[in-house]
Amino acid sequence: MYGEIITIGDELISGRTLDLNAKYAAGRLTASGLRVIRITSVGDDQVTLTKTLSTALENSRFVIVTGGLGPTDDDMTNEIVASALNRSLSINKQLLKRIETYLKTRGMTLTPAMEKMAHLPEGSEILHPDGLMCGCSIVEKDVRLYFLPGVPDQMSHLLDNFVLPELLSVYKTVPVVEQRILKLYGVNEAEIMEALKDLTDDTGDVVLGFYPNFPENHITLSLNEKNEATIKKELDRVENQIKKILGVFIFSSGHQDMEEIVGHALLEKGITIAVAESCTGGLISHRLTNVPGSSTYFQGGVVVYSNQVKMNLLNVSPETIETYGAVSECTVREMVRGVQKRFDTDLGLAVTGIAGPDGGSAEKPVGTVHIGLAAGDKSLSGKYRFWGNRGQIKMEAALMALDWVRRYLNGNTFLPGI
Amino acid sequence: MYGEIITIGDELISGRTLDLNAKYAAGRLTASGLRVIRITSVGDDQVTLTKTLSTALENSRFVIVTGGLGPTDDDMTNEIVASALNRSLSINKQLLKRIETYLKTRGMTLTPAMEKMAHLPEGSEILHPDGLMCGCSIVEKDVRLYFLPGVPDQMSHLLDNFVLPELLSVYKTVPVVEQRILKLYGVNEAEIMEALKDLTDDTGDVVLGFYPNFPENHITLSLNEKNEATIKKELDRVENQIKKILGVFIFSSGHQDMEEIVGHALLEKGITIAVAESCTGGLISHRLTNVPGSSTYFQGGVVVYSNQVKMNLLNVSPETIETYGAVSECTVREMVRGVQKRFDTDLGLAVTGIAGPDGGSAEKPVGTVHIGLAAGDKSLSGKYRFWGNRGQIKMEAALMALDWVRRYLNGNTFLPGI
Repeated sequence: MYGEIITIGDELISGRTLDLNAKYAAGRLTASGLRVIRITSVGDDQVTLTKTLSTALENSRFVIVTGGLGPTDDDMTNEIVASALNRSLSINKQLLKRIETYLKTRGMTLTPAMEKMAHLPEGSEILHPDGLMCGCSIVEKDVRLYFLPGVPDQMSHLLDNFVLPELLSVYKTVPVVEQRILKLYGVNEAEIMEALKDLTDDTGDVVLGFYPNFPENHITLSLNEKNEATIKKELDRVENQIKKILGVFIFSSGHQDMEEIVGHALLEKGITIAVAESCTGGLISHRLTNVPGSSTYFQGGVVVYSNQVKMNLLNVSPETIETYGAVSECTVREMVRGVQKRFDTDLGLAVTGIAGPDGGSAEKPVGTVHIGLAAGDKSLSGKYRFWGNRGQIKMEAALMALDWVRRYLNGNTFLPGI
Repeated sequence: MYGEIITIGDELISGRTLDLNAKYAAGRLTASGLRVIRITSVGDDQVTLTKTLSTALENSRFVIVTGGLGPTDDDMTNEIVASALNRSLSINKQLLKRIETYLKTRGMTLTPAMEKMAHLPEGSEILHPDGLMCGCSIVEKDVRLYFLPGVPDQMSHLLDNFVLPELLSVYKTVPVVEQRILKLYGVNEAEIMEALKDLTDDTGDVVLGFYPNFPENHITLSLNEKNEATIKKELDRVENQIKKILGVFIFSSGHQDMEEIVGHALLEKGITIAVAESCTGGLISHRLTNVPGSSTYFQGGVVVYSNQVKMNLLNVSPETIETYGAVSECTVREMVRGVQKRFDTDLGLAVTGIAGPDGGSAEKPVGTVHIGLAAGDKSLSGKYRFWGNRGQIKMEAALMALDWVRRYLNGNTFLPGI
């Protein structure tokens, strides 16, 4: 069953804010087997919202609308919807009472701005059994419309607990849709296309999708409307063919990110790690600690931005830095030994490089990055050249360093450097 | 002059990918005085894209379309556009030659997939004077349509260097629009509305916008179509009124992020800093080092995830951890002294807390966070309770810690804790 999402807010169409609500809702609807055919963002603008709503009513079976339900003057969704659907606005007594109670417990009195929140289009049904930001639904010409607040936590709570269950109970005949994601690192889209050019004729009903997702590349495998046993078999067949060709670049065949894959492998093998970061500035530690339970294997890290700190904290010798520079193979080797020893861990991981925009030279241009890994008595290092702005070079270097850990734990060779 | 943005890709409507292109293009267009009235994302789907294109042609003066120009089978923008505009597809010889040259230098031969990229709708004008991903434009019934690749770097390059200059030269009568942003931390939207309730009648033609942007809140001030001198005076007047009421929460009156504000203040005062992080896991260091030139004031940081490391690296005493726990005022005080001493900096900043989802207790629930600041011989600490998931608690704690530095440098009091 197909529908669409409309998100409302000047901050979206002026480019100030990323539309996290649309991404969340689209992901949850898709994962539930409901198809999203379009996402539209409009401002607090009666004309465009009215047109967008009527187009949606003509083309979709359900419409999720977020934003514009609050007390401020630019929150006008209820008024615009009432006018677009030719319905009157009237006070919802249930909601008004909630607002009054909320204000009373805070020693405040009802203002016209707060009362406005209770003016809903005729026929609206409140979604949440209590709470102020309760959302509501309207059925118009067999199309189910849902109006949710724009605050991401409130929106996701209402979507998960009220909208999705209702949609799934109404549209019981949702076809089985399965999609798998392969996440790749170290290979670009053109190389992927070239590598899979003989395969693409032989995927049967499995549809492949190719998506650059800097610095990763994702391949999706999708199959619709068959029975579950066939779907699994067909997807397995194509997935295995891709893995035969590009397996070494595939770090995740699912929704897990690199840090979850690495974390899971460390946990499973009972291996501990510590990280020394220069140009990545804490990003590797930040990513590793985004994983719940990471304290089991991640002992800690150091961000050694100055040379003095590299010497004091990691025992990098002044002579090494003097002779070879802070961005060099010798320095990264001493850093990685130093961090492994300092944290007393099985593995040490170290990165030193030039994230830019300044600090580059002809010999060591911006984007030059050394990665080091220490395991037991051994240490390894590699030199890479990354491209992009400061943020992109940090992202590339952090992902490459995590990929080194993944490949080491898998017994794979590292990606070739320069 | 008003227009809209259409982004194409199944990854957008299935919620797998955030629409960074739409945000970038919307931001650049708005900043140039061009109004974006709608952003629409559709899949690689002929029916919906065709309808979306014709709606855009009826309602806008310019349309920016991104995605679907590559060599893969799901890249169908050119075909769909040709059919929607009733134009034939024909080989653009200039582009075909570029593709052949590109392949030749790599020792590859022309494949039908690569050749397909050169099939453009009749009347297309190539934007970039060389390069494969060159984008193109079409004028249809006085509406200017631009087709750009979906890869963010390519899209932004073409938009900035070819699309925007052309739009600005065609629509010379762009009205003067100025928008200012005030970024606030430590106050919620309802409190902002309450604080400004008497002001909102007195803003003249200045339109205020209120946008929660977790964990921040943003207020925009916009004014259209007047002469520049008046605009500045009017915006200054309203900005000053807001600052009188909420000034203590406003950390940025511009586009700068907290780390840029803090970094600038440190640089200006010639003060150095080092950071000890437990629950934020490296995020504070990562944010500080996102600022170019941060190595001048940021000496480095430690991520002390285990108790052992807190003791070894920061000299937190085993008795303190034993008696008060790792998440306590006493521990954060010793951490912050330890990091300041270890890195020999003017300021030390430390955070210890429980990011969850596990590790909470009745006494110290998930979200309990202690922040410490050492300056010279003094040290200060505060205890906070944050809400949300692991990622949100990391974000809140990191922002609060950075806000402590900002307030300390400004001579402001810290936000009250618990």
